[in-house]
Amino acid sequence: MPLSEFSLIERFFASRARQLSAPHTGATLGIGDDCALIAPRPDELLAVSTDMLVEGRHFLPDVDPHALGHKALAVNLSDLAAMGAKPRAFTLALAMETPSEAWLAAFADGMFALAERYGCELVGGDTTRGPLNLCLTVFGDVPADRALRRSNARPGDDIWVSGTLGDARAGLGLLRGEWPAALFDEDGAPGTHAAFLRHALERPEPRVALGLALRGLAHAALDISDGLAGDLMHILERSSVNASVDVDAVPRSRALEKLPRDVQLRCALAGGDDYELCFTAPPAARDAIAAAGEHAGVAVTRIGTISALRDPSDPPTIAWHDASHTPLSLSLHGFDHFHAH
Amino acid sequence: MPLSEFSLIERFFASRARQLSAPHTGATLGIGDDCALIAPRPDELLAVSTDMLVEGRHFLPDVDPHALGHKALAVNLSDLAAMGAKPRAFTLALAMETPSEAWLAAFADGMFALAERYGCELVGGDTTRGPLNLCLTVFGDVPADRALRRSNARPGDDIWVSGTLGDARAGLGLLRGEWPAALFDEDGAPGTHAAFLRHALERPEPRVALGLALRGLAHAALDISDGLAGDLMHILERSSVNASVDVDAVPRSRALEKLPRDVQLRCALAGGDDYELCFTAPPAARDAIAAAGEHAGVAVTRIGTISALRDPSDPPTIAWHDASHTPLSLSLHGFDHFHAH
Repeated sequence: MPLSEFSLIERFFASRARQLSAPHTGATLGIGDDCALIAPRPDELLAVSTDMLVEGRHFLPDVDPHALGHKALAVNLSDLAAMGAKPRAFTLALAMETPSEAWLAAFADGMFALAERYGCELVGGDTTRGPLNLCLTVFGDVPADRALRRSNARPGDDIWVSGTLGDARAGLGLLRGEWPAALFDEDGAPGTHAAFLRHALERPEPRVALGLALRGLAHAALDISDGLAGDLMHILERSSVNASVDVDAVPRSRALEKLPRDVQLRCALAGGDDYELCFTAPPAARDAIAAAGEHAGVAVTRIGTISALRDPSDPPTIAWHDASHTPLSLSLHGFDHFHAH
Repeated sequence: MPLSEFSLIERFFASRARQLSAPHTGATLGIGDDCALIAPRPDELLAVSTDMLVEGRHFLPDVDPHALGHKALAVNLSDLAAMGAKPRAFTLALAMETPSEAWLAAFADGMFALAERYGCELVGGDTTRGPLNLCLTVFGDVPADRALRRSNARPGDDIWVSGTLGDARAGLGLLRGEWPAALFDEDGAPGTHAAFLRHALERPEPRVALGLALRGLAHAALDISDGLAGDLMHILERSSVNASVDVDAVPRSRALEKLPRDVQLRCALAGGDDYELCFTAPPAARDAIAAAGEHAGVAVTRIGTISALRDPSDPPTIAWHDASHTPLSLSLHGFDHFHAH
């Protein structure tokens, strides 16, 4: 007989939630009542984000459940990072057809390993039978005047990204057989590039420390989940500005560079699933941002510039160019990425 | 071509969210950024609850989308009501295979009609392609010392329920053909009982006003989603107490009373999907609770009594009896209710 809702929650989640529960989380009541109760912090806003992950769309049916547990929380923490919010708590709603103890145990291990690193407490949830679906809602704290919104990019700002882009998409291509794994073999260390790309796909690291370090420095920020081209456009639209981007400056890993240049660019600019931060900041903040990246342990790279709309009624655009400032006409539409909606 | 994520959100949800947005909600940033930002209220805790609804398990495939929009939010608001929390905001994550404008428009109408009645603002969400799945997370405010928890029932407390129980389960039986609709025909007004039962199933009313009125009066409370027998047990387990319940006192509608007595009892005690409140309070509070029900516009009925465990190590039990105090041995297990997990 399948596990009941209560035993599911109790055995794999509630017990772990209690281990993690600590005064710093500020949840005065967690799993087991009608609601969790979260105590606000004086002078801070509660940042809230929700993401739903569906089998076949956000992860493959044969995904390692430990990696899935990690990723389901990571993509939500990435939203907090993009807001400059400090993670505090989360809820988990889970639908699955055939609860398996082994699967749930591995999933919970992957999720809680990440939750514990960020002091993020599971405070509530729901489980039900149905096609595999994970819906997490995360909570974090951010001072009202220091939240990193999308709407505050200003002409003259630099455009920055963290880490390297395109690796998750290249890792997906590997799993799909779009390019041979042998392409990524290195002299003396075959397979490490391929493993790196797959790791990027399955275990993205939310840039929480960077988001916190960018408070008061960055004008606008978001996390790159659907590909740089589409996500940067969200900043432009909400800030009513244009961007120019040097595609050769967009940071790419040595592993990604094994692919043909046009594929590299499509992975890096429209690949999706990166969960790196894209942010804008004034040139005067360059040194401080480099220091913030160093403090957070992640590379930060300038890739372009924000400019004013020629006419306030114009739609925002991204002007792509290469290192020699030659304009590029990129056809990024129709590039099938994993995180498609 | 199907609607993209962005147009889905924008057309059916974000525009309505903005209409609803008002100073009283306290959300300083809603849909369109990485996170919503919720401003805490001084001296209040934020109550948080999440519920996931899956086709075939929580609603039938041919459900009226307007009713589904209502119910998806109602069952979440019911959790806030059970905590004595005042609704403030919610997020919606939605997976569906084939977005239909007509379906989404009706769904949004049903959801926002209820949201507007309770001043509850949509502050964020996610949409993705996948088997139909709705995951809502609701937020409400409650003073820390007045939250209605499950763990505070005390020996000597009365046990109360709101409204009438079993109607949703009887309505489901109607849809499933478990009993003929003609059974509910009345002299002179055929079908009104059947319509009442179906309405109870499809459009439960969250007992928000009652939950607020019970602050400071009730010792323990929860909402009945899986049937009185199972849900009352949650109070007993968390409070370490026993209960005795007069099944003849459990309030039943005139419509439900058309069914055989044993079916009435199974619907009322184990039917599920009631979304009425079950709560305990000291006998000294009887008049105040009657007044609270009157103020909230819903009947409140005493159905039993809380008592101490004979031995602290005993598992809590519910002793069922009838109006003549004859003990009943009820076999409620295996009664297939709709909200099964």
